[in-house]
Amino acid sequence: MNIPYHLDHMVGGLKNRGKSRADVDERRKALEQFSQASLECIGSYTFDPLLAEKSIENMIGAVQMPLGFVGPLKVNGDHAAGEFMVPMATTEGALLATVNRGCSALTTSSGVKAMIIKDEMTRAPVFRVKDISHGRQVAAWVNEHFAEIRAEAEGTTRHGKLLSAKAFDSGRNLYIRFAYDTGDAMGMNMVTIGTEAASRLIEQETGATLISVSGNLCVDKKPSAMNFILGRGKIVLVDALLPRSVVEEKLKTTPEVITEVCYRKNLMGSSMALSYGYNAHVANMLAAVFIACGQDPAQVVEGSMATTTAELVDGDLYVSLRLPSLEVGTVGGGTRLPCQSEALSVMDCLGKGKAKKFAEIVGAVCLAGELSTLAAQGSGQLASAHKSLGR
Amino acid sequence: MNIPYHLDHMVGGLKNRGKSRADVDERRKALEQFSQASLECIGSYTFDPLLAEKSIENMIGAVQMPLGFVGPLKVNGDHAAGEFMVPMATTEGALLATVNRGCSALTTSSGVKAMIIKDEMTRAPVFRVKDISHGRQVAAWVNEHFAEIRAEAEGTTRHGKLLSAKAFDSGRNLYIRFAYDTGDAMGMNMVTIGTEAASRLIEQETGATLISVSGNLCVDKKPSAMNFILGRGKIVLVDALLPRSVVEEKLKTTPEVITEVCYRKNLMGSSMALSYGYNAHVANMLAAVFIACGQDPAQVVEGSMATTTAELVDGDLYVSLRLPSLEVGTVGGGTRLPCQSEALSVMDCLGKGKAKKFAEIVGAVCLAGELSTLAAQGSGQLASAHKSLGR
Amino acid sequence: MNIPYHLDHMVGGLKNRGKSRADVDERRKALEQFSQASLECIGSYTFDPLLAEKSIENMIGAVQMPLGFVGPLKVNGDHAAGEFMVPMATTEGALLATVNRGCSALTTSSGVKAMIIKDEMTRAPVFRVKDISHGRQVAAWVNEHFAEIRAEAEGTTRHGKLLSAKAFDSGRNLYIRFAYDTGDAMGMNMVTIGTEAASRLIEQETGATLISVSGNLCVDKKPSAMNFILGRGKIVLVDALLPRSVVEEKLKTTPEVITEVCYRKNLMGSSMALSYGYNAHVANMLAAVFIACGQDPAQVVEGSMATTTAELVDGDLYVSLRLPSLEVGTVGGGTRLPCQSEALSVMDCLGKGKAKKFAEIVGAVCLAGELSTLAAQGSGQLASAHKSLGR
Amino acid sequence: MNIPYHLDHMVGGLKNRGKSRADVDERRKALEQFSQASLECIGSYTFDPLLAEKSIENMIGAVQMPLGFVGPLKVNGDHAAGEFMVPMATTEGALLATVNRGCSALTTSSGVKAMIIKDEMTRAPVFRVKDISHGRQVAAWVNEHFAEIRAEAEGTTRHGKLLSAKAFDSGRNLYIRFAYDTGDAMGMNMVTIGTEAASRLIEQETGATLISVSGNLCVDKKPSAMNFILGRGKIVLVDALLPRSVVEEKLKTTPEVITEVCYRKNLMGSSMALSYGYNAHVANMLAAVFIACGQDPAQVVEGSMATTTAELVDGDLYVSLRLPSLEVGTVGGGTRLPCQSEALSVMDCLGKGKAKKFAEIVGAVCLAGELSTLAAQGSGQLASAHKSLGR
Repeated sequence: MNIPYHLDHMVGGLKNRGKSRADVDERRKALEQFSQASLECIGSYTFDPLLAEKSIENMIGAVQMPLGFVGPLKVNGDHAAGEFMVPMATTEGALLATVNRGCSALTTSSGVKAMIIKDEMTRAPVFRVKDISHGRQVAAWVNEHFAEIRAEAEGTTRHGKLLSAKAFDSGRNLYIRFAYDTGDAMGMNMVTIGTEAASRLIEQETGATLISVSGNLCVDKKPSAMNFILGRGKIVLVDALLPRSVVEEKLKTTPEVITEVCYRKNLMGSSMALSYGYNAHVANMLAAVFIACGQDPAQVVEGSMATTTAELVDGDLYVSLRLPSLEVGTVGGGTRLPCQSEALSVMDCLGKGKAKKFAEIVGAVCLAGELSTLAAQGSGQLASAHKSLGR
Repeated sequence: MNIPYHLDHMVGGLKNRGKSRADVDERRKALEQFSQASLECIGSYTFDPLLAEKSIENMIGAVQMPLGFVGPLKVNGDHAAGEFMVPMATTEGALLATVNRGCSALTTSSGVKAMIIKDEMTRAPVFRVKDISHGRQVAAWVNEHFAEIRAEAEGTTRHGKLLSAKAFDSGRNLYIRFAYDTGDAMGMNMVTIGTEAASRLIEQETGATLISVSGNLCVDKKPSAMNFILGRGKIVLVDALLPRSVVEEKLKTTPEVITEVCYRKNLMGSSMALSYGYNAHVANMLAAVFIACGQDPAQVVEGSMATTTAELVDGDLYVSLRLPSLEVGTVGGGTRLPCQSEALSVMDCLGKGKAKKFAEIVGAVCLAGELSTLAAQGSGQLASAHKSLGR
Repeated sequence: MNIPYHLDHMVGGLKNRGKSRADVDERRKALEQFSQASLECIGSYTFDPLLAEKSIENMIGAVQMPLGFVGPLKVNGDHAAGEFMVPMATTEGALLATVNRGCSALTTSSGVKAMIIKDEMTRAPVFRVKDISHGRQVAAWVNEHFAEIRAEAEGTTRHGKLLSAKAFDSGRNLYIRFAYDTGDAMGMNMVTIGTEAASRLIEQETGATLISVSGNLCVDKKPSAMNFILGRGKIVLVDALLPRSVVEEKLKTTPEVITEVCYRKNLMGSSMALSYGYNAHVANMLAAVFIACGQDPAQVVEGSMATTTAELVDGDLYVSLRLPSLEVGTVGGGTRLPCQSEALSVMDCLGKGKAKKFAEIVGAVCLAGELSTLAAQGSGQLASAHKSLGR
Repeated sequence: MNIPYHLDHMVGGLKNRGKSRADVDERRKALEQFSQASLECIGSYTFDPLLAEKSIENMIGAVQMPLGFVGPLKVNGDHAAGEFMVPMATTEGALLATVNRGCSALTTSSGVKAMIIKDEMTRAPVFRVKDISHGRQVAAWVNEHFAEIRAEAEGTTRHGKLLSAKAFDSGRNLYIRFAYDTGDAMGMNMVTIGTEAASRLIEQETGATLISVSGNLCVDKKPSAMNFILGRGKIVLVDALLPRSVVEEKLKTTPEVITEVCYRKNLMGSSMALSYGYNAHVANMLAAVFIACGQDPAQVVEGSMATTTAELVDGDLYVSLRLPSLEVGTVGGGTRLPCQSEALSVMDCLGKGKAKKFAEIVGAVCLAGELSTLAAQGSGQLASAHKSLGR
């Protein structure tokens, strides 16, 4: 391969593994030279790059995404109680205005009830076994030696607690789905490392061969029935009852209209499309909050598998949202970066003891976005809102 | 509801619809006062907020996400040809290092072949019809008057071209899936506005009632079989053949190991989980490139429905990736923001005539990430890579 | 392997390929001797076994399944018009009584509207191609030489007409989904033979290697999103409007109750289970009619992917059913056997020109069963009905 | 509605609820008169119709389906051990010949290993609750009062044992999935009746409203991820290792070819179609055995969700099948009818203590059919086999 001069320079740049601002600058300038593009905005980041040394390699700066907020949003959660301002980062015009209208309607009503009914982070290695008999032997061994396996897994982490290890077999493939309590961390790395240790023990004792510490039954960053049904991260439920008058005044429509839109679109439409998401646009709210708050934006994928319902109850409007796979944390990962930790602080959601609170707020803000969009579509406002506010 | 002082102030802040830096500062300071949190990093954005006036409401600043790059990655696409440096923004340690290793192996081989086999953005309104007979009449009317419908839709846009309108009926629900050529824009707003106009015509002429301009058969930001099978945005195919020596030297494993990991994990594992994503972690690469380059990060959801294959061919390694629903653009939306347009410029992918090129590069970089992760998992390196580089 | 005497005898019996009654008797007696089981009922079949010579091998007699009928069921179809008695074979107590109640309610109302909106039988071979570029060349060749391919396929059949051939590619796999008009035959064998011929031509001309004439994108006898979305066999729609008085008198419940049951069970419940069937028990009706009428009972699998809706319309009850993959025929296969042809004759559905009529009646009787079961469950009668009539 | 003479007569016939041969004859003759069709074959059934009084209503005779057998098939199961002749009823030419070839290859090898790794029949009522808080209260009550609930459910049955009751909530919908050990019965009616009783207790104690005793999370007779992942009825695993020489001699192909067909068709093809069945034609074997042996043919739907794997192991061929939802019984239902009980007796599978044995044999015969079809398709024999033996 004939590498041109600038490119060769870049390859050299890549070899610079330095994490200081000078290293970042050197790499960025090399890339500017190579690409003939100015990277001024990318270069004008304002945090100490050493804070990002565990978050990225080959750093050349930062991308700035516009950040706003919605609220106040009243949440009556098991963990989050009060009225919250929620930071959201997006480039999609009309999103925050839409969500904010939902917040207003919900807060004017009695707020959003929120709860977490399951909380487990999973990792499922795949082993090659000799045949189904061997697979069953390995599965039995795992059951019988769960205490040892747990000790091995928990030996790698201060915070993770192994809760269960469930086998799924098919021919020469054995998947063991490990489920952990990961405290306030989203916990993916923690469970990967713990499961890797546990898997090595299983290999030694059973003759099974570890093929991959992730066998895609985890299921991380792919839509899946497995997570939809069994949950991953937090299963969050939220709901609210809106008086008819609030629907009419704040949302400019009626409970009947919202109920019909929800039925024909979120339920019938998604069933016709065989979608794993029976909602309007939960992914929008998740992406905007995840990016603002240092969560893993690729996990919006699992988060998008959510079900929104709307029902008429004694003339008022009942709405609910079920998020079976919401994966968030308030320690570690991107939450350590300055802008992101500031965003979490706005809701007093930074650090230990805050993950469940944060998850409930996220669920509530998703419900606000769903409600508002259902109302807008019902009144033919979606397109016109985009015309005036959007691109 | 008893709104506390600061909160009331915020509600006022929300009423400030101004887009200037002073407006942004006022809102941010109010939020700081309310939340007692310092928002210094969020406030230290460096672009003119008027550039974001169509991208966000209620802006208080920006979130800075660390940005790096991978490459050079050699692409032999129908639209992208050459060696590219690809910007990626992430907070997930080890991601760029992983992808970069894949780039190195692919570029040392003969590069990545890339092509786009379908390119359509869709919007599917739902109408309420009287019964199945009425539904069929409406569907027939749409077929017979397609030219008028197209004129109505295209009258709202300079760039969108309506290609087809396909009916799906069930009882009193009629979904019409409109498919457009949207040029270099991702095109969601364009097709929403065009479809809204067309839908009004259909309403007038047929007696059908428009319930929602999006009936969830579009399918936007939800995982769905509809998009997996029919495609949405661009259907992108990429592949590469890696000599055994490259696999051994660059990836520290063998073609046999990667093939087995891909089979047991991506295919068998995803089938056991009934996942719509038969891949390792395509969502990671998509999220990082989308955020860097001003794409809609919520559309990582559809993008994550991808299939990675690995096969042994005469002792060498063949790998491929199929992305049935890659929704990207190089004009409009977030691409107009400064950092984001700089990132696109690194690949000469900013502006008109570049969307297909960009899509092919995105496909290629996803393949690089898949390849490297399959190799790492196969050699037991996943957990240890996270230990040394990660969080 | 040490084969015992009787078993050895059986193996000999298997070598008797004869199709006469004497051959059948000889095999049955050998099996009686081997198993020590009396096969008297199995042996007391009353048709000439030569009539079954293309329907089974190694015949020893017949199984007798109880047969009844439901009706009259009024159908206002595009092809079926009138009041029909529908034969059903089952061993599940209460099924016919349940369906019959639905027939009564529908016929007392204005009957069932029925229509077929698509009618194509498909077969999708899988080819191994060299890479995605080769795959695209093959797909292009197929498009360009469609007339030749059609001639090759149609050269094997008097009745099949090739309508289209659509490519789906992924890596080194190329699937081509052939769609045929198969007249009044269900048509699976016809399309297999035609597609095999066409595939050989494609092999010769393109260098692609035929791996299997069925590549599982057909999709035969497996539940699949592919058939749910694109249809296979006939896409049948049926609906009816029942006056409130009929619901109350015949079904002992109200439109409101049926609508709620349908919503919480067929829609919400199936969405929570990620089912491909949004109905109550369509498979029951299909299995009973298919067995009675000489259809392929394994194709109940595709048929079960159906959507039932119920809505309140001006105080009355609207119900509908969508069957996206109903595969039936009135010539060939099991329809040639005596009991089965008699059953088809009851509805004047035997032979040429009858397949569409039959499909509409099948759709209508499925709706009758759905309606009745929704009513029964709504009034808590399901369990008690099984107590008194069932097992 | 103007009912014609004959039809009116039929309605009278329907009112004849008699179960004797004379009643059956009267109904059949009325139907002959109405339809002008001879029903001679249907009328020539040879069993006492009183034996079917709990199996059907409105009986007019029986349908005779050709019955043959395959075998010997060697099974090394936990419950089935020996060489078995397996009765199959079908009208699909070539099916028994195909399966029989697979039996021969498997028996010549060391036979089929078989096991049952889970055995639970489920029923999931849906309750309407006030909101998510109420739903959680109900779910908690169910957990805390499980002993009472079990007593209530088990009070309705001699054989059913309630194992667990798991809640799934979404908004105002609460589904409780009851799982039972049903002994040797398939058990659907048993669990319906037991669950109905338990549900009434839950209603009384919690204020939840039972909407339907089946809320479609059971999931009966619909394809579903719920059953694929959690199982329903029996989860059966079978596998076998075939020496290369047996593959070559008996199946006229090689382990490599079968492995490739299985990969490109059963795995890749089904993944491209988003099928819930990763197999070739398991539904065929299930339908034929179910009809022969008095099983519920509509439950072929769940049974069809099976995964077939084929791998090359040291030059030999490993094949396996996973059936996550095989619902069979050897007492009750259709097993009481004469032909059907004879068929079960051929395998010594009639009556108590035989259901697990029967399930293993069914799994093994499905594997035989899969193996043979993969071999036939691999060698291009599928179409030609249908030409010579089929329709």
